[in-house]
Amino acid sequence: MSTDVGELARRTRAFIQEQVLPVERELIVAGRHMDDDVRVDLQRAAREAGVFGPLTPVELGGLGLDNAGLAEVLEAAGTSLIGPTAVNCAAPDDGNMHLLAAVCTREQAERHLHPLLRGETRSAIALTEPAPGAGSDPSMVRTAAARVSGGWVIDGAKHFITGAEGAAFTICIARTGDGGTTMFLVDQDNPGLRVGRRMPTLDHSAAGGHCEVTFADCFVPDEAVLGDVGAGLRYAQVRLAPSRLAFCMSWLGLAARAHEMAAAHITGRSSFGRPISEHGMAQAHVADNEIDIAAARALVRSVARVLDTDGLASSTARHGAAIAKTFVAEAVWRVLDRVVQLYGGLGICEDHLVARFLVEARGFRIYEGSSEVLRTSIARRVLRAHTTPAPAAPIAAAPASAAPTPVLESR
Amino acid sequence: MSTDVGELARRTRAFIQEQVLPVERELIVAGRHMDDDVRVDLQRAAREAGVFGPLTPVELGGLGLDNAGLAEVLEAAGTSLIGPTAVNCAAPDDGNMHLLAAVCTREQAERHLHPLLRGETRSAIALTEPAPGAGSDPSMVRTAAARVSGGWVIDGAKHFITGAEGAAFTICIARTGDGGTTMFLVDQDNPGLRVGRRMPTLDHSAAGGHCEVTFADCFVPDEAVLGDVGAGLRYAQVRLAPSRLAFCMSWLGLAARAHEMAAAHITGRSSFGRPISEHGMAQAHVADNEIDIAAARALVRSVARVLDTDGLASSTARHGAAIAKTFVAEAVWRVLDRVVQLYGGLGICEDHLVARFLVEARGFRIYEGSSEVLRTSIARRVLRAHTTPAPAAPIAAAPASAAPTPVLESR
Amino acid sequence: MSTDVGELARRTRAFIQEQVLPVERELIVAGRHMDDDVRVDLQRAAREAGVFGPLTPVELGGLGLDNAGLAEVLEAAGTSLIGPTAVNCAAPDDGNMHLLAAVCTREQAERHLHPLLRGETRSAIALTEPAPGAGSDPSMVRTAAARVSGGWVIDGAKHFITGAEGAAFTICIARTGDGGTTMFLVDQDNPGLRVGRRMPTLDHSAAGGHCEVTFADCFVPDEAVLGDVGAGLRYAQVRLAPSRLAFCMSWLGLAARAHEMAAAHITGRSSFGRPISEHGMAQAHVADNEIDIAAARALVRSVARVLDTDGLASSTARHGAAIAKTFVAEAVWRVLDRVVQLYGGLGICEDHLVARFLVEARGFRIYEGSSEVLRTSIARRVLRAHTTPAPAAPIAAAPASAAPTPVLESR
Amino acid sequence: MSTDVGELARRTRAFIQEQVLPVERELIVAGRHMDDDVRVDLQRAAREAGVFGPLTPVELGGLGLDNAGLAEVLEAAGTSLIGPTAVNCAAPDDGNMHLLAAVCTREQAERHLHPLLRGETRSAIALTEPAPGAGSDPSMVRTAAARVSGGWVIDGAKHFITGAEGAAFTICIARTGDGGTTMFLVDQDNPGLRVGRRMPTLDHSAAGGHCEVTFADCFVPDEAVLGDVGAGLRYAQVRLAPSRLAFCMSWLGLAARAHEMAAAHITGRSSFGRPISEHGMAQAHVADNEIDIAAARALVRSVARVLDTDGLASSTARHGAAIAKTFVAEAVWRVLDRVVQLYGGLGICEDHLVARFLVEARGFRIYEGSSEVLRTSIARRVLRAHTTPAPAAPIAAAPASAAPTPVLESR
Repeated sequence: MSTDVGELARRTRAFIQEQVLPVERELIVAGRHMDDDVRVDLQRAAREAGVFGPLTPVELGGLGLDNAGLAEVLEAAGTSLIGPTAVNCAAPDDGNMHLLAAVCTREQAERHLHPLLRGETRSAIALTEPAPGAGSDPSMVRTAAARVSGGWVIDGAKHFITGAEGAAFTICIARTGDGGTTMFLVDQDNPGLRVGRRMPTLDHSAAGGHCEVTFADCFVPDEAVLGDVGAGLRYAQVRLAPSRLAFCMSWLGLAARAHEMAAAHITGRSSFGRPISEHGMAQAHVADNEIDIAAARALVRSVARVLDTDGLASSTARHGAAIAKTFVAEAVWRVLDRVVQLYGGLGICEDHLVARFLVEARGFRIYEGSSEVLRTSIARRVLRAHTTPAPAAPIAAAPASAAPTPVLESR
Repeated sequence: MSTDVGELARRTRAFIQEQVLPVERELIVAGRHMDDDVRVDLQRAAREAGVFGPLTPVELGGLGLDNAGLAEVLEAAGTSLIGPTAVNCAAPDDGNMHLLAAVCTREQAERHLHPLLRGETRSAIALTEPAPGAGSDPSMVRTAAARVSGGWVIDGAKHFITGAEGAAFTICIARTGDGGTTMFLVDQDNPGLRVGRRMPTLDHSAAGGHCEVTFADCFVPDEAVLGDVGAGLRYAQVRLAPSRLAFCMSWLGLAARAHEMAAAHITGRSSFGRPISEHGMAQAHVADNEIDIAAARALVRSVARVLDTDGLASSTARHGAAIAKTFVAEAVWRVLDRVVQLYGGLGICEDHLVARFLVEARGFRIYEGSSEVLRTSIARRVLRAHTTPAPAAPIAAAPASAAPTPVLESR
Repeated sequence: MSTDVGELARRTRAFIQEQVLPVERELIVAGRHMDDDVRVDLQRAAREAGVFGPLTPVELGGLGLDNAGLAEVLEAAGTSLIGPTAVNCAAPDDGNMHLLAAVCTREQAERHLHPLLRGETRSAIALTEPAPGAGSDPSMVRTAAARVSGGWVIDGAKHFITGAEGAAFTICIARTGDGGTTMFLVDQDNPGLRVGRRMPTLDHSAAGGHCEVTFADCFVPDEAVLGDVGAGLRYAQVRLAPSRLAFCMSWLGLAARAHEMAAAHITGRSSFGRPISEHGMAQAHVADNEIDIAAARALVRSVARVLDTDGLASSTARHGAAIAKTFVAEAVWRVLDRVVQLYGGLGICEDHLVARFLVEARGFRIYEGSSEVLRTSIARRVLRAHTTPAPAAPIAAAPASAAPTPVLESR
Repeated sequence: MSTDVGELARRTRAFIQEQVLPVERELIVAGRHMDDDVRVDLQRAAREAGVFGPLTPVELGGLGLDNAGLAEVLEAAGTSLIGPTAVNCAAPDDGNMHLLAAVCTREQAERHLHPLLRGETRSAIALTEPAPGAGSDPSMVRTAAARVSGGWVIDGAKHFITGAEGAAFTICIARTGDGGTTMFLVDQDNPGLRVGRRMPTLDHSAAGGHCEVTFADCFVPDEAVLGDVGAGLRYAQVRLAPSRLAFCMSWLGLAARAHEMAAAHITGRSSFGRPISEHGMAQAHVADNEIDIAAARALVRSVARVLDTDGLASSTARHGAAIAKTFVAEAVWRVLDRVVQLYGGLGICEDHLVARFLVEARGFRIYEGSSEVLRTSIARRVLRAHTTPAPAAPIAAAPASAAPTPVLESR
């Protein structure tokens, strides 16, 4: 198996190199956003190259990898900003695949999950809201779903909804009374769901952008409820650890590529009478990048094994993924920043790509749990061990109200 | 005098607040670059507000400040990305004003310097070249000027030439035999000077962009020589210290504004049951920003006094300005980065401006001497004191070939 | 005046170089602590060298400097760990001089302040207590003084009382009912005051060590009250800003000396075929040290001017001193740490002194307000400006209960 | 097997907790150095507890672990400063075991290696020399061995020779003509070997200290040559990777223990109206420690597997160990530094141990390759891939003179 994964990773890397990088360059030079026409073409090529669908079960045409395998393959795919999309493993679809696989009914699977896994559709998940709604604190959700005959009516405003434009459906998280929240599967063509503007974020590589989405008098039938009523935030945990870790994998790939680019770049250039590659401060940047990447990779792979053995929503998985997300987001940022510095003036020119990489990566320290929010929750888990006798229970047994102030982090 | 400067700074700050910020927001939201029509309007308003021309002598309609005064006023102007341009003290014009004032003839002053000081024109300086030409190491200049009857013919390619599009003239630094370099004042409409494309840099606020410029069979008469033949790199030192320090002043203003914006932003928002302003990690960011800004301000002002007392090209000025540039560029970056983090998701949306500030600022750690190149030269000056008996002489007496490996840093 | 200060600083530096450094080396090599016999000898030499008493008024035999002057002279004295003691301006005496000068009666001045200023005595101040008493939060003082006929009886335990062993008197801060605290001048030979063990702290250079001190049934007469009953924490503010800033000045001196030592050290050594001074990573350390020192110096001097103009207990002085303390403590630590790294293996050998410097300096980021406590209070002052209309009032008018949670930082 | 290792690690941790920590505390409080009487007692206890000899083959009474197993067990042993010695796996013995196992003859094994593995003796390795000899650059060795009848005569001065006092033998690295170096096994009672003073280093936990050692007219017979004449620096590579990694393992253990101590410490204390464990800046320290430890652990374990699969002297092992050493040394330092900060004033008191931990750890960023030297060699390996076609060959085939400037790092 491990050999297979190594081979898949190499094949993925070659696919990105040959078929995705030229498209990426074209998009960046043109200042264009990633979009669905590009996605469809790339995914077709990925299928032909045998690298489509790292998370898609083999019987649905994918690679069917566990998280340990994904760590190698998604890092390879991540060597391009649009690589994860090309192999059908980009956010928020990857997390939604995990979530639906764990929670949805057979009918919901056929309608929503399988087309998603096959790359026929894209999806969105709508949690974050403008202030004073849910930002980094998901318990502040204000979008509300009211019980009506045969279903629910959802009202509320969401923003930063990745991939909303062009998605087939959106998983909407809404308050459903008594402090509980519930997840609803809302078809994108539901007349009560309106996708507003793409927000002018620094990154341009998410198919479907990051959108404002409004639910206005949006009726959904009972079959649209995902899992149990009132269990929304609990389910959100199922996707959180793998989603965070997947971001780490793909950004790590980009960092590793940029690191190689910078090493090659400075090898051929001179200043002050010596090749730049002989300047000690340049070497310090190269070494620090190598170190950051090695540490990030080891951490991601070790946490991936925890997810595989302990379960996606286990407390060890959540703790590990929070740690990995924080470390890797900061490490990737440091690497890309040093790469820009190694390029000098060319590093702030978008035609050398590394400027674009840095700008694209800026959000990674914020979305899916900012470094500050995550560190708060990491510290609380550590400190709790010194005050309470028992560790947090796994999700199945998780009581609705966990410890003192539950930190259920998200964007 | 000091009272006057304080008053001028307050007036400048108010001018920026009332008349420049609305224009800045418009440009950013529209994704537009700063351009000359905007510049002309803003400078007219600056004149009316009595804040035009910090470096322009009073008799030419300006404020006639020394560097100590400039530190306060340019920080105020810098609270907008386009503020320095609005008051006619943006790069590269400010450095060129210093350079011309120190070196040019009366005729050159009337033709080039005075219109520049009055804001009637803009200027450029052409030093940096594509590899293997002069990048961070100015001694690698390959653009060459050949002696011909009545003048010189310049040939070579330059890039990252700030403000070239729309400038009235460019100071071209070219090799002139025997290892010497010479500065030439080239009218922008000289048929041998071609302004190429604007380079797609991350920043958008420099009037005239950062351009590729080619000199091809470019004839200039003897009167176009600035100062002495062969003294080009020596003169470059005259503008280096004040130019670096001016960047520090204006970026410090932007950092201070962003810091205030972030403090206001988090004061009104809550998460996890408390105002964000009560979260310890948010407070750490706010405090670190306050500290970085205070240290940067104290350093800039103390070095400004050194420039005023010891002279722009003194070794103490050069050393101090290199120190300030390095510290302030890194500090400003840290501040803007923390501000983005304090804004959370909104911090990577360009409609909240702070995302744009971060992206605009990225070049500051590279241009006018990258942090690595500057630290090399700072260290060498420190270490030289432990090997040679006498400190470096001031510019007037500077021998053509200074110590072991002269580090004459630039972009 | 400014010339005089420059001259005094040079003279102080020379005095340290010639007369204090040999004593310092002897103490360090022998693993001995600084003690009073050494202090008396050094202060006699300082008087002869004309550098005694930077804070001592001229009429009492000192230099009578303001904070701006002190910044230069105390930095010079601080080039030795025991230099501030040698010139009679070491903690806690310097802060106590400021406090007594501002608050004490004529009789108290004659009995306590003047001998202190003349170097005939040393003093202590007893605020911090073992948990759950006052640590970084002075409002948690548990030592209590009860009203009795003709005076007060103090009971409680203190620790980390710098200089207690051998001091002539201790300013004890005790709770005096109704939530107020009061300062008492307690003679060290008061039978109710017991100086316990010297605590085994990392630093060895404080005359009198850092001691445990117990007040048990300790009677003091009414004349022992310093200032008003109940105003203890308010008075503590008077000494806080100058005391913090004085630490910055003297540690800056040590950092500057270590920086010079390291530069000299690496200039004469080689590895990997080149002088270490030509290794880029060594140069990075040297440059970063030069930058940190320059920024720290500029900041300290600018805040010193604020203390001189706005008053020791003004809100601007307190804010500035908190900023300077935080920045300088961290910067000094970075400098000394890099110096150790530049020395390599020799850097962790105490016979090269720099190892000792690092260890001695570790406490500076903790005492007189840890970097964390100070950043909290800095942030609160910044953020308060965005919620309340008026800035904090100066000390004279300060209400007993300031804003939400007053941060009155100390060790 | 993996279960066994987990069980061994738990047993080791318990042994340390119960039998080693009390001894450690006694040594620290008394200011005593680790010494052989203590070592012998502890090793006897370790044998009884079944945790003796992680590297000692089972047939010699040890645990016979590979590097992957060692990573878990030595981290457990490292929770005490003297834990690695207690289980007979402290530097330099662990590295010497690897070296001798790979290179020595059957006779040398019986005489030197087996007693070492059984804990009957200690050993030393003498590479580093006072300037201008071998410091961080082993190619600068000046100690020379001259061919004489029946053997060699060694002359030269070494310093920082860990464990020299009380060792049974020293592996001396000396120049043997033609630029080659050779390793010699020198009995400690050889009259030509003199152990000088223990150097006054910051750490006190190495049995036998760090000593000055002189070889004067020191005759050794031919049988004392370790491996081939001229191959000394090549053999040094055999011990380098496992030795560096072993340091990482044990220091990681100490960092993890200190992290737990700090978390427990702040849980029970309050300031400013809240438990310190609720202060955001304290939480940031706790989280950063948790993250640093997790990343360090993942990296160490992944590199340990590389050593096991690729060989101790493979280029991947050397690269990986250099990366791990640099990252872990810096991470451990950050952790211990934050722990001190979390303890506040108590953190700089040696009776709370964490002050001592910080001081002890300072050398780790310097010995066995300073962070700067290692980063240079890491960068060169990365950059070489961009200039030369083939990667470095494994040790067996390594030519005497490798690439441009071979960086063969050591202390």
